[in-house]
Amino acid sequence: MTSSQPTLGVAGLGLIGGSLALAARSSGYAGRCLGWDQDDEVQQRARNLRVVDDCCTSLAELARNCDILVIATPTRAAERLLQRLFDLAGEGMASPIITDVASVKGPLCALAEKAPASVARRFVPGHPIAGSERSGVAAARGDLFLAHRVILTPLPTTDETAMAAVRELWEAAGATIFELAVDEHDAVLARTSHLPHALAFSLVDTLARTERSSDIFRFAAGGFRDFTRIASGDPVMWRDISLANAEALMEAIDDFTADLATLRDAIERGDGEALEDTFRAAKAARDEFATDLSARQRRKPVKRGQ
Amino acid sequence: MTSSQPTLGVAGLGLIGGSLALAARSSGYAGRCLGWDQDDEVQQRARNLRVVDDCCTSLAELARNCDILVIATPTRAAERLLQRLFDLAGEGMASPIITDVASVKGPLCALAEKAPASVARRFVPGHPIAGSERSGVAAARGDLFLAHRVILTPLPTTDETAMAAVRELWEAAGATIFELAVDEHDAVLARTSHLPHALAFSLVDTLARTERSSDIFRFAAGGFRDFTRIASGDPVMWRDISLANAEALMEAIDDFTADLATLRDAIERGDGEALEDTFRAAKAARDEFATDLSARQRRKPVKRGQ
Repeated sequence: MTSSQPTLGVAGLGLIGGSLALAARSSGYAGRCLGWDQDDEVQQRARNLRVVDDCCTSLAELARNCDILVIATPTRAAERLLQRLFDLAGEGMASPIITDVASVKGPLCALAEKAPASVARRFVPGHPIAGSERSGVAAARGDLFLAHRVILTPLPTTDETAMAAVRELWEAAGATIFELAVDEHDAVLARTSHLPHALAFSLVDTLARTERSSDIFRFAAGGFRDFTRIASGDPVMWRDISLANAEALMEAIDDFTADLATLRDAIERGDGEALEDTFRAAKAARDEFATDLSARQRRKPVKRGQ
Repeated sequence: MTSSQPTLGVAGLGLIGGSLALAARSSGYAGRCLGWDQDDEVQQRARNLRVVDDCCTSLAELARNCDILVIATPTRAAERLLQRLFDLAGEGMASPIITDVASVKGPLCALAEKAPASVARRFVPGHPIAGSERSGVAAARGDLFLAHRVILTPLPTTDETAMAAVRELWEAAGATIFELAVDEHDAVLARTSHLPHALAFSLVDTLARTERSSDIFRFAAGGFRDFTRIASGDPVMWRDISLANAEALMEAIDDFTADLATLRDAIERGDGEALEDTFRAAKAARDEFATDLSARQRRKPVKRGQ
C-alpha cells in the first residue's frame, strides 16, 4: 500500500464496481477512486454521478494510477482483463494489488497459476455475495455490501499484504469476510446459486414452450413469481457462469436430477411417508436458512469507515 | 338460493375459508356466515375474531343450516368432507349448493361422478389462485381474493343455478372467474404450482443432505431465499397435493427432467449459443409474466358488494 489512503481503481463500472467505489470513499478507505469501462457512455455516467473521481482511457492507465484494482465485471470479461494485467506486468509495469468479484473463481486462479509469481501473488480472488435485481452504474449504492458476505479464495502463493488490503477494502464497505479454497467456492456456489438459476431458467423455458403456455402463465401467482425471479437474470452473464463453472454445475445438476427421480418414484408408488419426510426435512432446512439470513440482514456493523 | 342474501357455510376455518367468510359478509353477498371446523379451538377463535357469526357442531348441522357450503380444506380432507356431504344427501338431507377450494380437482370430480345426480349437480368445483405465507384463521383477511383469479371446473351435469351462485360469491369477494375443464386445471396447476413446489422441496432437501450443507446455506443469499420460499410450505398439504395430482405431476416432472438434461448437455459440450438461447427465451417469458402479474395486482375492482 503506497499511502494510508490508497487510490482505488475500478475496472467495469456496473452495479458492483460502482457500489464498491462509493463505499470505499464514503468509508474513508480510499482517498481517490478511478474508473475504467470499455463503454465510454458508462464512463461518462459514472463521472456525472460522482461514482468515481475520474476515468482512465485504458486498463493500463488505470493499473498505473491506482494502488488496488478491482476487476468488477462478469466472469468471462474478468478473465480477459486479468490476463491483460498479467501481460502488462510481464512487460515491466509495476502491478497494483488486484482483486475481482466474479462468481466463478476456478478460471481466474488457473490464469494466476500460469502468470509470473511476482504479479500473481498480488492477485486476491474475491466474490461478494450481494447483488440486486437492478444493474448498471446508476443503481450503485454505497451500502450495497453492508452486512453481506464476501468470499476470498487466496492461492497458496498470495501475498499477505495484498490479502490484508483487500480484506480491509471489503470490511470498510461493511462486509464480513470468509475464506474458502477455490474448488470449495465453486462447488458451493454451483449449488446455492448456479444450480437454482439453471433450474429456474429451464423451468420457465419448458413452460413457455408447452401448448398450454398462455394458460400456465395466466394461472401462476406469487409463489411462481418468487420461484422464477432469478430467471429474469442476464442471459449472457449466466451463459458465461454456466460455462466457467461447468464441472461443478454438472455435478450439482446430476445430484439434483437423481434426487428428483427418487421423489418421482415416491409419487408413482403413492408413498406418502417418503414424500412427507422429504418435504418436512426441506421445510426445516429452508426455515432455518431464512431465519439466519434475516438475522444477518438485520445486523448492522457497529462502526463504519474503520 | 333461498333468499337474496344466502347463508354461507364454511367447513374448515383456515386462511382461505376465514377470508372468504369475511369477504362474503363485508361485500353484502351473505347475510350470515356459519362455520365448522374439526378443531374446537379453531372454531372458538373464528367466533372470537368474528370471522363467522356462529359455529355448528357437525358438518351435517352446517349443511342443514346454510344455502351455500364451501369446503375450505386441503385436498385430501376436502375429499372426505365432500363424500360425507354426498352420503348425507343420500340419506335424505336437502343439500345446499357445495363448492370447494382444493388445489387438485380430479379426485373431487371423480367422487361427484359416483354420487346421486340430484346432489352431484349442486357441486361446483373451484380453486382460488390465492394464498399467503401465513396460514390459519387469525391471518384471514376480507381482501385476500381482491383482483385474484378463481378457476371453476364445472362438470357436464353441474346445475346452472349452483354455478351462478358460486360465481356470484367469488365475484363479491373481488375475484375474477375463469372456467377450465377438470383435466386442464390439474395439468396447468401441476406445472405452475405443484412442479415448482416439488423442485424447491427437492433442491433444499438435496442441499441439506450434502457434506457441505452448512457452507451452502451460509453463502446463499436473497436469490436463493426467493427461489426456495415455497419449500417453507406445509409438508402434509404438499404430500396430499402430490398424491392427488400424481399423474399430471409426474408428467410435468418428466418434461422438466428431459429439458434439464438438454441444458446439461449444452453445458457439457460448451455450447454457449444454446445456453444463451434458452436463458434468453426464459427471461423474456418470465419478464412478461411478472409484468402481467403486477398489472393484475394493481387493478382493483371498480365496485364491490355488487
